[in-house]
Amino acid sequence: MSKLHWEDFEPGRVFEYGPRRITRDEIVAYAAEFDPQPFHLDADAARTTMLGGLAASGWHACCLLMRMSADSFVLNASSMGAPGVDEVRWLAPIRPDDELTLRTTVVEARPSRSRPDVGFVKFRFEMFNAAHVPVMTLTASLMMGRRGAGAAA
Amino acid sequence: MSKLHWEDFEPGRVFEYGPRRITRDEIVAYAAEFDPQPFHLDADAARTTMLGGLAASGWHACCLLMRMSADSFVLNASSMGAPGVDEVRWLAPIRPDDELTLRTTVVEARPSRSRPDVGFVKFRFEMFNAAHVPVMTLTASLMMGRRGAGAAA
Repeated sequence: MSKLHWEDFEPGRVFEYGPRRITRDEIVAYAAEFDPQPFHLDADAARTTMLGGLAASGWHACCLLMRMSADSFVLNASSMGAPGVDEVRWLAPIRPDDELTLRTTVVEARPSRSRPDVGFVKFRFEMFNAAHVPVMTLTASLMMGRRGAGAAA
Repeated sequence: MSKLHWEDFEPGRVFEYGPRRITRDEIVAYAAEFDPQPFHLDADAARTTMLGGLAASGWHACCLLMRMSADSFVLNASSMGAPGVDEVRWLAPIRPDDELTLRTTVVEARPSRSRPDVGFVKFRFEMFNAAHVPVMTLTASLMMGRRGAGAAA
Protein backbone atom coordinates (compact mmCIF):
# COMPACT_ATOMS: atom_id res chain seq x y z
CA MET A 1 0.00 0.00 0.00
CA SER A 2 1.41 3.34 -1.06
CA LYS A 3 1.90 5.75 1.84
CA LEU A 4 0.55 9.28 1.79
CA HIS A 5 3.28 11.88 1.36
CA TRP A 6 3.38 15.64 1.84
CA GLU A 7 2.21 16.16 -1.76
CA ASP A 8 -1.02 14.23 -1.03
CA PHE A 9 -2.19 16.66 1.66
CA GLU A 10 -3.82 19.30 -0.50
CA PRO A 11 -5.51 22.16 1.42
CA GLY A 12 -9.20 21.36 1.74
CA ARG A 13 -8.73 17.57 1.75
CA VAL A 14 -10.84 15.95 4.48
CA PHE A 15 -10.41 12.66 6.37
CA GLU A 16 -13.39 11.24 8.27
CA TYR A 17 -13.06 8.62 11.02
CA GLY A 18 -15.26 6.88 13.56
CA PRO A 19 -17.36 6.33 15.48
CA ARG A 20 -15.17 5.37 18.44
CA ARG A 21 -17.03 4.62 21.68
CA ILE A 22 -15.61 5.80 25.02
CA THR A 23 -16.63 3.93 28.18
CA ARG A 24 -16.99 4.99 31.80
CA ASP A 25 -14.18 2.57 32.72
CA GLU A 26 -11.81 4.20 30.22
CA ILE A 27 -12.68 7.69 31.49
CA VAL A 28 -12.04 6.75 35.11
CA ALA A 29 -8.89 4.71 34.38
CA TYR A 30 -7.36 7.58 32.41
CA ALA A 31 -8.24 10.09 35.13
CA ALA A 32 -6.80 7.89 37.88
CA GLU A 33 -3.49 7.74 36.05
CA PHE A 34 -3.14 11.23 34.61
CA ASP A 35 -5.82 13.71 35.69
CA PRO A 36 -7.30 12.78 39.09
CA GLN A 37 -9.58 15.80 39.45
CA PRO A 38 -12.89 14.77 41.07
CA PHE A 39 -15.07 15.60 38.03
CA HIS A 40 -13.12 13.08 35.91
CA LEU A 41 -13.05 10.34 38.57
CA ASP A 42 -16.34 10.24 40.39
CA ALA A 43 -19.92 10.75 39.18
CA ASP A 44 -21.17 11.98 42.56
CA ALA A 45 -18.40 14.55 42.94
CA ALA A 46 -18.90 15.64 39.32
CA ARG A 47 -22.63 16.34 39.68
CA THR A 48 -22.19 19.66 41.50
CA THR A 49 -19.37 20.96 39.26
CA MET A 50 -19.50 23.03 36.07
CA LEU A 51 -19.38 19.78 34.07
CA GLY A 52 -22.65 18.64 35.65
CA GLY A 53 -21.63 14.98 35.73
CA LEU A 54 -18.74 12.65 34.98
CA ALA A 55 -16.80 13.77 31.91
CA ALA A 56 -13.55 12.68 30.28
CA SER A 57 -10.40 14.69 30.93
CA GLY A 58 -9.65 17.06 28.08
CA TRP A 59 -6.23 15.42 27.88
CA HIS A 60 -7.91 12.04 27.48
CA ALA A 61 -9.81 13.55 24.56
CA CYS A 62 -6.48 14.63 23.05
CA CYS A 63 -5.14 11.07 23.41
CA LEU A 64 -8.23 9.68 21.69
CA LEU A 65 -7.87 12.27 18.93
CA MET A 66 -4.26 11.12 18.43
CA ARG A 67 -5.34 7.48 18.22
CA MET A 68 -8.27 8.21 15.91
CA SER A 69 -6.09 10.31 13.60
CA ALA A 70 -3.47 7.53 13.63
CA ASP A 71 -6.08 5.01 12.52
CA SER A 72 -7.63 7.52 10.11
CA PHE A 73 -4.52 8.49 8.12
CA VAL A 74 -1.35 9.12 10.15
CA LEU A 75 -0.19 5.49 10.23
CA ASN A 76 -0.68 5.38 6.47
CA ALA A 77 1.36 8.54 5.94
CA SER A 78 5.07 9.36 5.98
CA SER A 79 4.59 11.13 9.32
CA MET A 80 7.73 12.24 11.14
CA GLY A 81 5.92 13.60 14.18
CA ALA A 82 5.01 17.14 15.13
CA PRO A 83 6.80 20.11 16.69
CA GLY A 84 3.78 20.88 18.86
CA VAL A 85 0.15 21.93 18.92
CA ASP A 86 -1.15 25.40 18.06
CA GLU A 87 -4.45 25.36 19.93
CA VAL A 88 -6.87 23.04 21.70
CA ARG A 89 -10.45 23.99 22.57
CA TRP A 90 -12.57 21.77 24.81
CA LEU A 91 -16.10 22.77 23.81
CA ALA A 92 -18.48 20.28 25.44
CA PRO A 93 -18.17 17.45 27.97
CA ILE A 94 -17.40 13.93 26.70
CA ARG A 95 -19.64 11.50 28.59
CA PRO A 96 -19.51 7.74 29.23
CA ASP A 97 -20.68 5.80 26.15
CA ASP A 98 -20.34 8.78 23.80
CA GLU A 99 -19.67 7.74 20.23
CA LEU A 100 -16.94 10.02 18.91
CA THR A 101 -16.15 10.87 15.31
CA LEU A 102 -13.20 12.81 13.94
CA ARG A 103 -13.05 15.12 10.94
CA THR A 104 -9.60 16.25 9.86
CA THR A 105 -9.16 19.04 7.32
CA VAL A 106 -5.89 20.02 5.67
CA VAL A 107 -5.49 23.77 6.23
CA GLU A 108 -2.07 24.47 4.77
CA ALA A 109 0.94 22.67 3.32
CA ARG A 110 4.38 24.24 3.10
CA PRO A 111 7.84 22.85 2.37
CA SER A 112 10.51 22.87 5.05
CA ARG A 113 13.07 25.62 4.49
CA SER A 114 15.90 23.57 5.96
CA ARG A 115 15.08 20.05 4.74
CA PRO A 116 14.11 19.44 1.11
CA ASP A 117 12.84 15.93 1.97
CA VAL A 118 10.31 17.25 4.52
CA GLY A 119 7.15 19.34 4.41
CA PHE A 120 4.77 20.67 7.05
CA VAL A 121 1.03 20.01 6.90
CA LYS A 122 -1.27 22.03 9.13
CA PHE A 123 -4.43 20.20 10.15
CA ARG A 124 -7.68 21.33 11.74
CA PHE A 125 -9.18 18.48 13.80
CA GLU A 126 -12.84 18.50 14.89
CA MET A 127 -14.23 15.84 17.23
CA PHE A 128 -18.00 15.34 17.50
CA ASN A 129 -20.31 13.26 19.67
CA ALA A 130 -23.18 11.17 18.30
CA ALA A 131 -25.50 14.23 18.33
CA HIS A 132 -22.87 15.89 16.09
CA VAL A 133 -22.10 18.45 18.79
CA PRO A 134 -18.43 19.50 18.49
CA VAL A 135 -16.68 18.42 21.71
CA MET A 136 -13.15 19.53 20.76
CA THR A 137 -11.18 21.35 18.09
CA LEU A 138 -7.43 21.19 17.69
CA THR A 139 -4.92 22.71 15.27
CA ALA A 140 -1.47 21.19 14.74
CA SER A 141 1.18 20.79 12.07
CA LEU A 142 2.77 17.45 11.23
CA MET A 143 6.05 16.86 9.43
CA MET A 144 5.65 14.63 6.38
CA GLY A 145 8.17 13.06 4.07
CA ARG A 146 8.10 14.36 0.50
CA ARG A 147 7.56 11.99 -2.41
CA GLY A 148 10.73 10.72 -4.02
CA ALA A 149 12.87 12.00 -1.14
CA GLY A 150 14.68 8.70 -0.52
CA ALA A 151 14.81 7.72 3.13
CA ALA A 152 11.48 9.34 3.93
CA ALA A 153 9.60 7.63 1.05
CA MET B 1 -5.67 22.34 54.47
CA SER B 2 -6.79 25.60 52.89
CA LYS B 3 -7.18 25.34 49.11
CA LEU B 4 -5.55 27.78 46.75
CA HIS B 5 -8.02 30.16 45.17
CA TRP B 6 -7.83 32.54 42.22
CA GLU B 7 -6.50 35.30 44.47
CA ASP B 8 -3.47 33.15 45.40
CA PHE B 9 -2.20 32.94 41.82
CA GLU B 10 -0.28 36.17 41.57
CA PRO B 11 1.57 36.75 38.28
CA GLY B 12 5.17 35.64 38.72
CA ARG B 13 4.39 32.98 41.33
CA VAL B 14 6.25 29.73 40.57
CA PHE B 15 5.48 26.10 41.46
CA GLU B 16 8.26 23.52 41.19
CA TYR B 17 7.62 19.76 41.02
CA GLY B 18 9.58 16.55 40.49
CA PRO B 19 11.55 14.67 39.55
CA ARG B 20 9.19 12.11 38.01
CA ARG B 21 10.87 9.18 36.26
CA ILE B 22 9.45 7.82 32.99
CA THR B 23 10.19 4.20 32.07
CA ARG B 24 10.51 2.40 28.75
CA ASP B 25 7.48 0.27 29.66
CA GLU B 26 5.34 3.37 30.25
CA ILE B 27 6.47 4.91 26.94
CA VAL B 28 5.63 1.77 24.98
CA ALA B 29 2.34 1.10 26.81
CA TYR B 30 1.12 4.64 26.18
CA ALA B 31 2.13 4.46 22.52
CA ALA B 32 0.41 1.11 22.01
CA GLU B 33 -2.85 2.55 23.30
CA PHE B 34 -2.85 6.08 21.92
CA ASP B 35 0.01 6.86 19.51
CA PRO B 36 1.28 3.73 17.77
CA GLN B 37 3.80 5.43 15.49
CA PRO B 38 6.95 3.29 15.16
CA PHE B 39 9.29 5.84 16.84
CA HIS B 40 7.22 5.65 20.05
CA LEU B 41 6.84 1.86 20.04
CA ASP B 42 10.04 0.25 18.91
CA ALA B 43 13.68 1.16 19.56
CA ASP B 44 14.92 -0.42 16.31
CA ALA B 45 12.35 1.40 14.16
CA ALA B 46 13.07 4.63 16.02
CA ARG B 47 16.81 4.57 15.42
CA THR B 48 16.60 5.71 11.79
CA THR B 49 13.98 8.44 12.39
CA MET B 50 14.39 12.13 13.24
CA LEU B 51 14.06 11.20 16.93
CA GLY B 52 17.19 9.02 16.70
CA GLY B 53 15.83 6.42 19.13
CA LEU B 54 12.80 5.51 21.21
CA ALA B 55 11.07 8.63 22.56
CA ALA B 56 7.79 9.25 24.37
CA SER B 57 4.80 10.50 22.40
CA GLY B 58 4.34 14.23 22.79
CA TRP B 59 0.81 13.48 23.96
CA HIS B 60 2.22 11.21 26.64
CA ALA B 61 4.34 14.15 27.77
CA CYS B 62 1.15 16.25 27.99
CA CYS B 63 -0.48 13.57 30.15
CA LEU B 64 2.54 13.51 32.46
CA LEU B 65 2.48 17.30 32.64
CA MET B 66 -1.18 17.15 33.65
CA ARG B 67 -0.42 14.60 36.38
CA MET B 68 2.65 16.47 37.61
CA SER B 69 0.73 19.76 37.76
CA ALA B 70 -2.12 17.98 39.59
CA ASP B 71 0.32 16.72 42.21
CA SER B 72 2.16 20.05 42.24
CA PHE B 73 -0.79 22.40 42.92
CA VAL B 74 -3.97 21.71 40.90
CA LEU B 75 -5.42 19.15 43.35
CA ASN B 76 -4.80 21.65 46.14
CA ALA B 77 -6.56 24.44 44.25
CA SER B 78 -10.19 25.31 43.52
CA SER B 79 -9.67 24.20 39.90
CA MET B 80 -12.77 24.01 37.73
CA GLY B 81 -10.99 22.71 34.66
CA ALA B 82 -9.80 24.51 31.55
CA PRO B 83 -11.39 25.70 28.31
CA GLY B 84 -8.40 24.50 26.31
CA VAL B 85 -4.69 24.91 25.66
CA ASP B 86 -3.08 27.85 23.92
CA GLU B 87 0.16 26.27 22.72
CA VAL B 88 2.31 23.17 23.13
CA ARG B 89 5.92 22.94 21.97
CA TRP B 90 7.78 19.63 21.97
CA LEU B 91 11.40 20.74 22.12
CA ALA B 92 13.50 17.63 22.76
CA PRO B 93 12.87 13.87 22.89
CA ILE B 94 11.85 12.31 26.22
CA ARG B 95 13.83 9.06 26.62
CA PRO B 96 13.34 5.95 28.77
CA ASP B 97 14.46 6.60 32.37
CA ASP B 98 14.45 10.39 31.98
CA GLU B 99 13.82 12.19 35.26
CA LEU B 100 11.34 14.96 34.52
CA THR B 101 10.74 18.13 36.49
CA LEU B 102 8.01 20.72 36.01
CA ARG B 103 8.17 24.46 36.57
CA THR B 104 4.86 26.31 36.45
CA THR B 105 4.73 30.11 36.32
CA VAL B 106 1.61 32.24 36.73
CA VAL B 107 1.53 34.54 33.70
CA GLU B 108 -1.77 36.35 34.16
CA ALA B 109 -4.89 36.32 36.34
CA ARG B 110 -8.17 37.90 35.31
CA PRO B 111 -11.71 37.71 36.68
CA SER B 112 -14.44 36.05 34.65
CA ARG B 113 -16.73 38.64 33.05
CA SER B 114 -19.79 36.41 33.32
CA ARG B 115 -19.24 34.67 36.68
CA PRO B 116 -18.19 36.68 39.77
CA ASP B 117 -17.24 33.45 41.61
CA VAL B 118 -14.71 32.42 38.94
CA GLY B 119 -11.38 33.72 37.68
CA PHE B 120 -8.98 32.62 34.93
CA VAL B 121 -5.31 31.95 35.61
CA LYS B 122 -2.92 31.64 32.69
CA PHE B 123 0.03 29.36 33.33
CA ARG B 124 3.30 28.79 31.52
CA PHE B 125 4.49 25.20 32.06
CA GLU B 126 8.09 24.15 31.37
CA MET B 127 9.19 20.52 31.58
CA PHE B 128 12.87 19.66 31.88
CA ASN B 129 14.94 16.46 31.83
CA ALA B 130 17.67 15.68 34.36
CA ALA B 131 20.22 17.65 32.31
CA HIS B 132 17.84 20.62 32.67
CA VAL B 133 17.18 20.63 28.93
CA PRO B 134 13.63 21.89 28.29
CA VAL B 135 11.69 19.04 26.66
CA MET B 136 8.29 20.79 26.47
CA THR B 137 6.58 24.12 27.05
CA LEU B 138 2.83 24.59 27.32
CA THR B 139 0.55 27.56 27.92
CA ALA B 140 -3.00 27.14 29.23
CA SER B 141 -5.58 28.94 31.35
CA LEU B 142 -7.41 27.25 34.22
CA MET B 143 -10.66 28.35 35.81
CA MET B 144 -10.34 28.83 39.57
CA GLY B 145 -12.90 29.53 42.26
CA ARG B 146 -12.60 32.94 43.93
CA ARG B 147 -12.15 33.24 47.67
CA GLY B 148 -15.35 33.73 49.64
CA ALA B 149 -17.48 32.84 46.62
CA GLY B 150 -19.59 30.24 48.40
CA ALA B 151 -19.95 27.02 46.41
CA ALA B 152 -16.51 27.32 44.84
CA ALA B 153 -14.70 27.92 48.15
